[in-house]
Amino acid sequence: MKNKQFLLKTRPVGTPTRDNWDYVETEVPELADKQVLVKVAFISLDPAMRGWMNDGKSYIEPVQIGAVMRASTVGQILKSNDPKFQVGDYVYGHCGVQQYAVVDTQGLHKIDPSLAPLERYLGVLGMPGMTAYFGLLETGLPKAGETVVVSGAAGAVGTVVGQIAKIKGCKVVGIAGGADKCRYLVDELGFDGAIDYKSENVKKSLKALCPKGVDVFFDNVGGEILDDVLTQIRMKARIVICGAISQYNNTTPVKGPSNYLTLLVNRARMEGIVVFDNVANYPKAAAEMAGWIKEGKLKAKEHVVKGIERFPETLLMLFKGENMGKLVLKVDAE
Amino acid sequence: MKNKQFLLKTRPVGTPTRDNWDYVETEVPELADKQVLVKVAFISLDPAMRGWMNDGKSYIEPVQIGAVMRASTVGQILKSNDPKFQVGDYVYGHCGVQQYAVVDTQGLHKIDPSLAPLERYLGVLGMPGMTAYFGLLETGLPKAGETVVVSGAAGAVGTVVGQIAKIKGCKVVGIAGGADKCRYLVDELGFDGAIDYKSENVKKSLKALCPKGVDVFFDNVGGEILDDVLTQIRMKARIVICGAISQYNNTTPVKGPSNYLTLLVNRARMEGIVVFDNVANYPKAAAEMAGWIKEGKLKAKEHVVKGIERFPETLLMLFKGENMGKLVLKVDAE
Repeated sequence: MKNKQFLLKTRPVGTPTRDNWDYVETEVPELADKQVLVKVAFISLDPAMRGWMNDGKSYIEPVQIGAVMRASTVGQILKSNDPKFQVGDYVYGHCGVQQYAVVDTQGLHKIDPSLAPLERYLGVLGMPGMTAYFGLLETGLPKAGETVVVSGAAGAVGTVVGQIAKIKGCKVVGIAGGADKCRYLVDELGFDGAIDYKSENVKKSLKALCPKGVDVFFDNVGGEILDDVLTQIRMKARIVICGAISQYNNTTPVKGPSNYLTLLVNRARMEGIVVFDNVANYPKAAAEMAGWIKEGKLKAKEHVVKGIERFPETLLMLFKGENMGKLVLKVDAE
Repeated sequence: MKNKQFLLKTRPVGTPTRDNWDYVETEVPELADKQVLVKVAFISLDPAMRGWMNDGKSYIEPVQIGAVMRASTVGQILKSNDPKFQVGDYVYGHCGVQQYAVVDTQGLHKIDPSLAPLERYLGVLGMPGMTAYFGLLETGLPKAGETVVVSGAAGAVGTVVGQIAKIKGCKVVGIAGGADKCRYLVDELGFDGAIDYKSENVKKSLKALCPKGVDVFFDNVGGEILDDVLTQIRMKARIVICGAISQYNNTTPVKGPSNYLTLLVNRARMEGIVVFDNVANYPKAAAEMAGWIKEGKLKAKEHVVKGIERFPETLLMLFKGENMGKLVLKVDAE
């Protein structure tokens, strides 16, 4: 049985290119005890992947040179050496960028394709959804009537952050790139406002849309946008640092927030989050989110690209801001 | 009655110079109701003064052009139009950089020169002491056994932060400029270690002195030192942003912390403080600090410069790092 895989060949300097990958065909190995063979259906494309390609200490080990690229996936079990998993079961796990994966069952979770499309378990019902839920509610601590701003607002995490903030009674403004995304946020997801950072002066638009200032800023992008929002924060504001996608492909040092002293003036807080810390509470959060989806309060959107061979270019869509909603790669071309 | 005063003449670009000030002699005005005449004895020199000289929104109004420079002071009442204040009383208040002040009694607090030297009410027993106490204990939240690092460690706030952290059972490392200051921190104040940023590689020295990493960083200086400490923080670290004296005279934008994404990796927090928020709890804090002083656990140090006419140069000592302990200006030359 043949398996197509993307291996990390070299560590990128700046934006990853096709040369950083080896696209190979290998034999699927035999299963050891407590292992299963998974046919991967959808591969999650996440900004964090860029960090995993770098060497050096982070919240997770870097991907080793020559190893299959790490990725969250959903798929179906074709063979099982663990009585807890049956052939035919659908599972979520880190199976990597490949067609077939032989993996330990320890990191796998069963999912139910009758409740939601498979790819949704990589978005609203998966890590991005959990990141939005815990990051906003436990670190952002929004109160009804407060103003919540989210950057990367049309992305997998941002769309969920904004919708949960609306559910909690906040005024919500999203920052995104392009008129289509901004229209989508307001017209489809019910945001109170949206700022197109590609065509607008973010600081001026924030002043106009949030005249009382910003209570909670959920930041996925860093760079100039973080600095612009810092000029508009209110007293005791909470800034949730979820990511900094604008900086991940830098060949120069990360741009630190020059305006961080507004934290002092406003007695405000900037705090980093990593979703894995909340793993014990995922089921409770997932149940609440499923309820909101059922009630129509929380809309899910996935951006599906087809064909595993398109992985390198598809990953770059994240950094170019070309996706709307959760970006996933369907392994099969059809 | 003649009164010598420093008025803000122009707003400085970069480091203030003598040309930014008008040193004038004026008549002392008559007292209105609820006003007193104060003979200023000591003037506090604080990094925050540089910010007050700038135009623009901050946590407090800028000093207006032509106005007496704002300053915390201690002095004695010479005339009173308020029955609550008697001639001869000693008071703390914002009397400004001048020999005599006619002020409303609303912002004045009586102080007792028999309990401590007058100038101490501008240091450990005043704003810097309160800043250290509340910033460290309520925002830094140090626990016994944790590692606390403080920058500007030999300054008015830093000396107190380090000593309180020791009282609370923490390991304490100070960052200061010069061998004398570092020796003072370790030998006189009981810090566990000190790093001379002028002659050492701060990052390397931090690694050596804090091998488990930094739990609490109390930052008075910003710039490169903040960035260096960010590389050494532990999980769930708390960074207290009290000031950024390295950046106050910049003519280029403030250097934002390039390494702020270590907040994310470490689920850490950076939070700004302004001491005035705790005004209701000053008496409780002052009582506890006085107890520590009496027990010999908290040492006070003031750096006294004599003669009001030396105000412009004395203020600059803060930015050159020339003071050890709380810098105050004695109004009289003797």
